[in-house]
Formats: sequence, structure tokens, C-alpha cells
Amino acid sequence: MRVSEIAELLSGTAVGDAEREIRGVAALEAAGPNDLAYVESPRALAQAEASQAGCLLVPEGASLAGQTTIAVRHPKLALVRVAEALHPAATPPAGIHPTAVVAPDAQVAADCSVGPNVVIEGEVTVGAGTRLGAGVFLGQGVRVGAQCILHPRVTVYPGAQIGNRVILHAGAVIGSDGFGYVFAEGRHVKFPQLGKIVIEDDVEIGSNTTLDRGSLGSTIIGQGTKIDNLVQIAHNVKIGRHCIIVSQTGISGSSEVGDYVVMAGQVGVGDHARIEDRVVVGGQAGVLPGKIVRAGSVVWGTPCRPMSEFKKTIARLARLDALAEKVKALEKHLEKRM
Amino acid sequence: MRVSEIAELLSGTAVGDAEREIRGVAALEAAGPNDLAYVESPRALAQAEASQAGCLLVPEGASLAGQTTIAVRHPKLALVRVAEALHPAATPPAGIHPTAVVAPDAQVAADCSVGPNVVIEGEVTVGAGTRLGAGVFLGQGVRVGAQCILHPRVTVYPGAQIGNRVILHAGAVIGSDGFGYVFAEGRHVKFPQLGKIVIEDDVEIGSNTTLDRGSLGSTIIGQGTKIDNLVQIAHNVKIGRHCIIVSQTGISGSSEVGDYVVMAGQVGVGDHARIEDRVVVGGQAGVLPGKIVRAGSVVWGTPCRPMSEFKKTIARLARLDALAEKVKALEKHLEKRM
Amino acid sequence: MRVSEIAELLSGTAVGDAEREIRGVAALEAAGPNDLAYVESPRALAQAEASQAGCLLVPEGASLAGQTTIAVRHPKLALVRVAEALHPAATPPAGIHPTAVVAPDAQVAADCSVGPNVVIEGEVTVGAGTRLGAGVFLGQGVRVGAQCILHPRVTVYPGAQIGNRVILHAGAVIGSDGFGYVFAEGRHVKFPQLGKIVIEDDVEIGSNTTLDRGSLGSTIIGQGTKIDNLVQIAHNVKIGRHCIIVSQTGISGSSEVGDYVVMAGQVGVGDHARIEDRVVVGGQAGVLPGKIVRAGSVVWGTPCRPMSEFKKTIARLARLDALAEKVKALEKHLEKRM
Repeated sequence: MRVSEIAELLSGTAVGDAEREIRGVAALEAAGPNDLAYVESPRALAQAEASQAGCLLVPEGASLAGQTTIAVRHPKLALVRVAEALHPAATPPAGIHPTAVVAPDAQVAADCSVGPNVVIEGEVTVGAGTRLGAGVFLGQGVRVGAQCILHPRVTVYPGAQIGNRVILHAGAVIGSDGFGYVFAEGRHVKFPQLGKIVIEDDVEIGSNTTLDRGSLGSTIIGQGTKIDNLVQIAHNVKIGRHCIIVSQTGISGSSEVGDYVVMAGQVGVGDHARIEDRVVVGGQAGVLPGKIVRAGSVVWGTPCRPMSEFKKTIARLARLDALAEKVKALEKHLEKRM
Repeated sequence: MRVSEIAELLSGTAVGDAEREIRGVAALEAAGPNDLAYVESPRALAQAEASQAGCLLVPEGASLAGQTTIAVRHPKLALVRVAEALHPAATPPAGIHPTAVVAPDAQVAADCSVGPNVVIEGEVTVGAGTRLGAGVFLGQGVRVGAQCILHPRVTVYPGAQIGNRVILHAGAVIGSDGFGYVFAEGRHVKFPQLGKIVIEDDVEIGSNTTLDRGSLGSTIIGQGTKIDNLVQIAHNVKIGRHCIIVSQTGISGSSEVGDYVVMAGQVGVGDHARIEDRVVVGGQAGVLPGKIVRAGSVVWGTPCRPMSEFKKTIARLARLDALAEKVKALEKHLEKRM
Repeated sequence: MRVSEIAELLSGTAVGDAEREIRGVAALEAAGPNDLAYVESPRALAQAEASQAGCLLVPEGASLAGQTTIAVRHPKLALVRVAEALHPAATPPAGIHPTAVVAPDAQVAADCSVGPNVVIEGEVTVGAGTRLGAGVFLGQGVRVGAQCILHPRVTVYPGAQIGNRVILHAGAVIGSDGFGYVFAEGRHVKFPQLGKIVIEDDVEIGSNTTLDRGSLGSTIIGQGTKIDNLVQIAHNVKIGRHCIIVSQTGISGSSEVGDYVVMAGQVGVGDHARIEDRVVVGGQAGVLPGKIVRAGSVVWGTPCRPMSEFKKTIARLARLDALAEKVKALEKHLEKRM
């Protein structure tokens, strides 16, 4: 694409060599003369002046001497649009691979791509345009919506419901039994895990992440929520819309998470906790069982506390030795004076 | 089932509409007129009075005006029994799917169900009534007992021994190489990982959990122990009977865990630690390498300490700022007086 | 092998019954009369005197009355050599299993072993002597070097580059999309994940570990680095050579790790951090985003600090109650005197 074509696509203002050909997108520091890069922050503008990029997406109002630029309202978002145009995702051909095992009563839309060794059990439905990678397993009665991408080796237990435009990465397990037992006569008796799991539209779930079905109720992942690799979501957990849950976080049974919540990596949430809308939880933080984290708060630490408070505690901790020395000095001083 | 039939099954005492038909089990707050629910604690009794459930399992001696109830000794356990009767697990038909690849010298009991794309290598034995889900891999010489359920995509490395009534969830890896190297001449040389892994009867293991074989000795998971999703068990670890190990916990090499131990989520155990019988380890706690945690103790924190002590430290931590202020005030006060 | 033959293999000095037959290697405490064991440290020598092992590898200069020994410079490394001779890894026959699905334009070296249900997409190359276990998936354009072992159900996304003698354990996912979004108009828009992932020679990667491809740049795992089970490596992370990364550690996007770094289990590293050569990070430690950990340092805690300092803080923490009592006593004392 020429710079002028990209500017048109983005409704942006091009400055410089509008005829230059752009063949790919790249990071600012690695971009070459046929690459498009983006400059997000004013701070990055200085770095951008030395960039070898063929064209730079810059915020409206910014100027960069000697560079070919396109000014847009949201440069990073604009790059996404150009990347989609320049690097369209490889689309496997529609059709069911001859090695796939598909139950006769499964309903797979005609334009789906079903890869090698896929197994689709009875009463499954798969919506239009959905792609099932090699070795995907869809258990009895599973429903998968339209335009989904299930990467190789995704396992979906019977009965799970998956919305539209959902992306599931390799090795993810959807709808396995929750971890529930009744202790009786010296052993743990398995409690029924009969509930549902519902994954709403536009959710993305990372590699080898595990999501359990409800025990009696349902596990729900709300629309637009993005979950990273190796995350654990236990039975009956309800997660709202447009959340970001970073890798290796674990959410225990029956906890509720609101909309637009962000959890950094390795966060642990005890059971029956409630994390309200727009909360941000710092990395490795622990939310105790039953705890309510109020809407909009930013928390860190185990047990989690308001971020600013916890940071003070950390600073104090680093000076705990000095504090102890002071107390010792005071004691000595008083002893001397007596 | 009618309420009267359920009461008979449980040897419980029905009060109310004994002819009512019950079609399923449900959570107390979600149960409808054809559902059975249970009331575990006296505290839940109040909530139960407003329940729409068709029938409630209540503790012996409890009464609930206007509700149909069955009084039993252990309501939650009773629900398990009824759920088994009302929702018997779907049993796939016996037989070996034509796409399965089974070595000629493997011994698979006649009533087993072997799913699509299962791979069974040489000298494997699989006991009566065991079900192998789609894509399960059993390496050379693996032994699987009777009445086991291996969900899709479970991978069992060569030589692993699995007892009876064991449940392995999707993506679990049993018997991979432990993480052991010898450092020599600037690089890490792989130490032999030749040991065994033994999973005793009635163990359940969660999705994408990984268990390594012993390096020279054995890794052992004791009878009745339940392990959640995404747990890591390293080489030569010995876990006793009837333990509960919650999600994302990791146990390092050669550590020993007694019977009836409970580990909450995201616990880390260093190598060569010993956690004795009936210990409870709180979420995200860290047990240092070589540490011995005495029988029956309840510990939390990193490094883990007795729970009550650690809770006090946490409370103090939240007031550390105030303590520092006090010391400052004392210093000022003394300065003034000098 | 006879003891004399083993001594010759190791260029070591045998003392005792040089004709004894050794059939296997074993741990010191479990070894029997036909087993070889090793004694690493002087401290273990006492324990070794009571060993039933048929032969013991001991450090040069050590003597063990009544035992057959071979003195070598590095006993543990010597055991590795003997184990390789006594227990050569089972080698599956070369050839492509009839159930494997291999694209016509894939180049698989003639002596490779390609297991059942393996899927190899177009333009893939696989080097000499490499073994692909059952159900391995190699996406479009993947390059795998020579003498690699990919255990069952490893998933390699399109475009990933894997060096020589690399070992990937079951369920590992190589090159999945990084976790990157642009927030716009109330939802998270997927940022392009188009970068590369390069795994250099002699790397070993544990079961169900996940490694993301770069977003625009590359993710790189350096030569000889060993990664345990259930580890997460995010997009654009660069890891140097000969590192040890223990289970359940997570490294966030764009962070850089030097050579010979050791990370214990469950470590969390924020994004854009830099961990320089030969750093050791203690278990469960947290390295904050953007943090630089200087070469050779040993750190622990969240946020991580020098190990010796953090240990002091831990010790102080356990005495925080006593410190608070002291301050209270000082306050009372001064009140009385006023």
C-alpha cells in the first residue's frame, strides 16, 4: 500500500512522501524503509525522529521533521487497522478434513474449516465461518458461534456454550469439572459438577488456560473479556465484560468479577470474593475469600490493600531495620538518663 | 424420582409433599419446583425458607415451615447420592474407535471405551471399564487400572502406573521428565530422569496439571488425593492419601506431603521440604526448601509461619506507618527535653 | 557393564570389586547390589558407607571402607554418562506413521520419526534424527532442527523456529499470540501478533509451558536455556543462554533476561524489566515492570530486593510485634515521667 492509500484508509493527514510503498508494520526501533510504525506518546516522538521507518503514524498535531507521517487520532489503533489490511490472517480452506471425526447429528456450518483429527461429538453446533484447528475436541452438545477461531488441541467439555468471534488458543480447556468434594468417612467424595459454562462474544482465551464448568450453577465469561495463558477460572465464577486477566492468575470458586476489571499476572482470588467494576489488581496480589473490592479501586499485595497504602508499607518495610535501630537508641538514651 | 423415593434412597425422613417429582439437583438460590437442593448449615436455614426448591435436604432435627424436606445426617453428601441417581454420567459405548492406534501387544479390557485418535503403545495394560477420551496418549508400558476416566488429550509418558477409579482431566501430563541438570563446563547437562510415577486409587487430577516422573526414585500420589488444575508436581515428590491440592500450586523436587494435607491455591513448596499429616497451607504461601511443617499446623505467608502469628504480622504491617510516626514523636519529644 | 568397564568409560580409578556387574543407576539410599550410585558432597560420604549400592562414584581423593568405588572429578556428571550407556533412550523407528497428516511441500528428513496423528502443515522443515511424538502439530512454515524430541501433543504455531537438539515436553505451546490489545471505544481491540519466536539449540521446555511469539518483534530463548513445566513467556521476551527457569514462573512482555540467570519457582517478572547475567531470583519473587536487576545479584521478595536485605526484613517482620511493644513501653515510660 502507498502512504496515500493508508492515509485514506485511516482518514488521516499524510505529510512527506505520499507515494512511498509500505509492505508491513513493525516496531519503531526495528522498522525499515518499507515498514509502518506508530508513535504513541509525545515522549516517543524524540525517538521517532531517528526512526528508519518508511512511514510513521503520529498523534494529531504532532510534527516530525524529515519523516513521512500520517497524523491520526489514535496511532496504535490505526496501526491495527493497517496491519489487518497488510497482513490478513491466513484463512484455511472451508471444509472438513477427511481425518476429522464428526458425529452425524452435529451441525457444522458449510463454510467452516475443520482441521485434521478434530473430534465433534453428537448434538454439537458450529456457526458460520468458524475455524477448528487440528485436534480440537468438542464434546456432546457443545455450541460454538460464528467466526470463532479454535487453535489446535483446544478441548471443550460437553455442554459448553461459546459465543461469536471467540478465539481459543492451543491447549485451552473449557468446561472441565470444578474442584469440589464432600468430606465424609475419611475421604473426599466428588460433588456433582453438572453446571454450565458460557463464554460470551468476542472473548479471547490464552494457551493452556483452564476454565471449569459450574458445579450446580454456571461459570460465565462476559463479552469482550480477554484472558491470557495458564489462567485458572474455577466453577461458578462470573466474570463481567471487557476485563483483562493476565497470565497465571487464578480465580477461585463462586467469585464475581465486574466489568472492565484488570488483573495483572499471578493474581490469586479466593472463593466467594467480589471484585467490582473497573478495579485494577496488581501482580501477584491476593484477594482473600469473601473479600469485596469496591468499584474503581486499585489494589496490591496479599491480602490486597489500596495500592498507595501498600506502596507506603513496602517503603516502610525497606526501612524497618532503621526503625528498629531508632527504637533501640531511644531505649538506651532513656536508660542512661535514669 | 418422587420425594418418597429419594427419602428411601437416603434412609431419610420426608416431610411435606412426598409425591412431588424431582428431576434434578440445583443450588439453593436457583432451585425450582422440580429441583432438589440442600441446606448445609443452620445459618443457611433462614435462606432456605424462601427457596423455590421442590424439596430440600436438611440436617436431622431441622424444620422448615411450608417446605418439603428430607432430613438426613449429612445433607451435602446426600445430594451427591441423589445427583448420581438423577444425572448418571454419560457412558460412551464400549469398544475401540476405528481411528485409535493400539499396539498389538497392548492389553485393553474388553469393556473399555477407547475414543477417537487415542494412541496406545506397546505393553500397555488398561483395566476393566476404563474410558479413554479422544486423543489420549498412553506411552510404552503404561498401566491404567479399572474404572478410570481419562478425559481428552491426557498424555501419559512411558512407564507410568495409574490405579483404579482415577480421573484425569483434559490436557494433564503424567510422568514427564523432571527438571534436573548437572552444571559442567558452562552448560546444563540433562540428569537422567528414569524413575517411576505411581498414581494410586481414587485420585483425581485437574486439567493441564503436570506431574513429573522420578529422576532415580519415584513420584507418588497417594490414594484418594485430589489435585486441581494447573498444578505442578516435580520429580520424586511423595504425596500422601486424601490430600487436597488447589490450583496453580507447585511442589518442588523430593518434597514429602503427608496424609489429609490441604494446600490452597498458588502455594509454592521448595525442594526437600516435609509437610506432615493434616497440615493446612494458606493461599500463595511459600514453604522454603528443606522446611518441616509439623503435623496438624496451619500456616500462611512466605516464608510460611503459623497462621495466627502471620495474621498478627499482617495487622501490624497495616499499622507500620503509625508505628513509625510514634517513634518519630518520641524522638522529637526527647530532643525537646534535652 | 562391569565396574572396570565403567571406570574405563569415565577415566576414573576403581577400588574394590572391579568385576561386579552393574545394571542400572539409582539414588544412594535406594541402590542395590547391581546399581551404581553417586556421592556428591563430603557430607554424603558418611551416608554412603551404609549404602547397598554395587558401586559408588566418589569425588577424587575420597575413600569409603568396604565399598566398591570409582573416583572421578565430578561424580554427578559421571553418573549421567553411565546412565546414557546403561539406559539408552528408547528410539522409535524412523518413518512417518500412516495416520500422520503431512503437507506435500513439507521437508521431513528421511530418518525422522513422525508419530501417529502428527499434523505437519505446508513449508515446514524438520531436521535429521528429530522425533515427533503422537499428535504433535507443526503449523505453516515452522522450522525444526536436527536431533530434536517433541513429545506428544506439542503445538507449534505457524512460523516458529526451533534449533537443534531441542526437547519440548508434552502439551507445550510454542508461538501462540501474545496478550496485547488497544483499548478503544469501550472495548479491547486485538493488537497484531505477527512477530517471530526463535528457540535456539539445546533448549529444553517443560510440559504445558506456553511461549508467545513476538507482537511486532521477536521472542527469543537462548541456547542451552532450560525451562520447567507451566512457565509463561510473553511476547517479545528475550532470554539469554544457559538460564534455568523453574516451574510456574511468568515473564511479561518485552522483558530481557541475560545469560546464566536462575529463576526459582513461581517468580513473576513485570513487562520491560531487565535481568542481567548470572542473576538469581528466589522463589515467588516479583520483579516490577521496568526494573533492572544488576548482573550477579541475588534477589528475593516482591518487589524483589537483595536477598540478604530481604532476609533481614523477614526476620524483623517476625519480631514486629515485639518492636511495637517496645514503642508502647517507651511511650508509657515517658508519660509517667512527665
